[in-house]
Amino acid sequence: MQTANHMTNTAAGGTTRKAVVLLSGGLDSATTLAVARAEGYECFSLSFDYGQRHRYELEAAGRIARKAGIVHREMAIDLRALGGSALTADIDVPKNHHHNHHHDEIPATYVPARNTVFLACALGWAEVLEAGDIFIGVNAVDYSGYPDCRPEFIQAFETMANLALRAAVEQTMRFRIQTPLIHLSKKEIIGKGISLGVDYAETHSCYDPAPGGLACGQCDSCRLRKKGFSEAGIADPTPYACESS
Amino acid sequence: MQTANHMTNTAAGGTTRKAVVLLSGGLDSATTLAVARAEGYECFSLSFDYGQRHRYELEAAGRIARKAGIVHREMAIDLRALGGSALTADIDVPKNHHHNHHHDEIPATYVPARNTVFLACALGWAEVLEAGDIFIGVNAVDYSGYPDCRPEFIQAFETMANLALRAAVEQTMRFRIQTPLIHLSKKEIIGKGISLGVDYAETHSCYDPAPGGLACGQCDSCRLRKKGFSEAGIADPTPYACESS
Repeated sequence: MQTANHMTNTAAGGTTRKAVVLLSGGLDSATTLAVARAEGYECFSLSFDYGQRHRYELEAAGRIARKAGIVHREMAIDLRALGGSALTADIDVPKNHHHNHHHDEIPATYVPARNTVFLACALGWAEVLEAGDIFIGVNAVDYSGYPDCRPEFIQAFETMANLALRAAVEQTMRFRIQTPLIHLSKKEIIGKGISLGVDYAETHSCYDPAPGGLACGQCDSCRLRKKGFSEAGIADPTPYACESS
Repeated sequence: MQTANHMTNTAAGGTTRKAVVLLSGGLDSATTLAVARAEGYECFSLSFDYGQRHRYELEAAGRIARKAGIVHREMAIDLRALGGSALTADIDVPKNHHHNHHHDEIPATYVPARNTVFLACALGWAEVLEAGDIFIGVNAVDYSGYPDCRPEFIQAFETMANLALRAAVEQTMRFRIQTPLIHLSKKEIIGKGISLGVDYAETHSCYDPAPGGLACGQCDSCRLRKKGFSEAGIADPTPYACESS
């Protein structure tokens, strides 16, 4: 049996649905938050301190949430204990390598089971908040090598989620994982965000910034970002340490 | 396509499969570890410091792993940030209440999405270790009120796991979630553990121990434990602060 998600009354007399939004502080998650708010959700944003190389992205997430006036939580989870990724361990972040879109090439920056862990935590918070929707800015186009960014993974997670929770057993709620960017190119994501008023100067994308947070301009994430702005015909507000290639 | 899980050579010239075992330090997880070892797995145990009220269970997990001579990791994850359970928040642990087995009663000690989060972390470690099996001591008999202890949840998690990981995309591994205790009564679990040499004096079950770690003897977990030993006709090695009811 599927029943309506919980509603809360608004000052205007209407109802608002609550949503947990995974907010890393990057371009994609900031756009995802803007989409969720534009759709009328009361948003609760969640970031993870998982042993990243730096805190610039987390600081960006906090700023974005504060400007949006929403409840924001930063949750500590020590994924370094598991090892295995250039984003957390002592493996070099690849620079200026040829980024291809083959489905069988998985980047060195892939963190084992990261989206599974993040969605699991978001699910726990969603249950406590009685929020039926979880938004995540995964993208199957530019990051086709990350298995946990694919629609079939998201669908399987949603199925599992609806068997995992008290509210699912009591049949008072149904949980949805919403991925508004999953089929968009970086150009299309930036275009959508600009139309919704996202201030991309607030966001942080670089995997390997200089001290102070200046984006390197060379890692995969910087290169995709620059290419996206270029293709969208929009000036990239990001200062980069290096403008090469 | 399903291929064989990775094997490592042993000194004896045979092969060993690796397994990640979720080890809380309680009776069920200690028994689960003994089952996995008896089946010939090379075991890697994982515990979570998730903001429990005390560390006695975590200390028990460390002792059990050390005696077994296996690699053990304790991972910090702040589930308190999500709120909502008597095991982490400021909600009283129920004492001496009538524990019934109705499927629609969910205990106040339920932690939102806990097994989902723990299994997600175990999955990340399994991928790094190239371990195809994850053991978890969930039980659908005595804890029928916990949705994330049911076989249908475990099956859905396994399906999701095989879409989440690099190894699944590359089709070099297949992940299994093993739940050897899921259909056993506490009496049967204790009988199995005793036959495998588990020293239950090393384990900790109490939700609300006295300072120093002495089990209360009154919470749901203590009561189930005492009843299990009693029904198995085995002397319970646990000292309790209180022997009531």
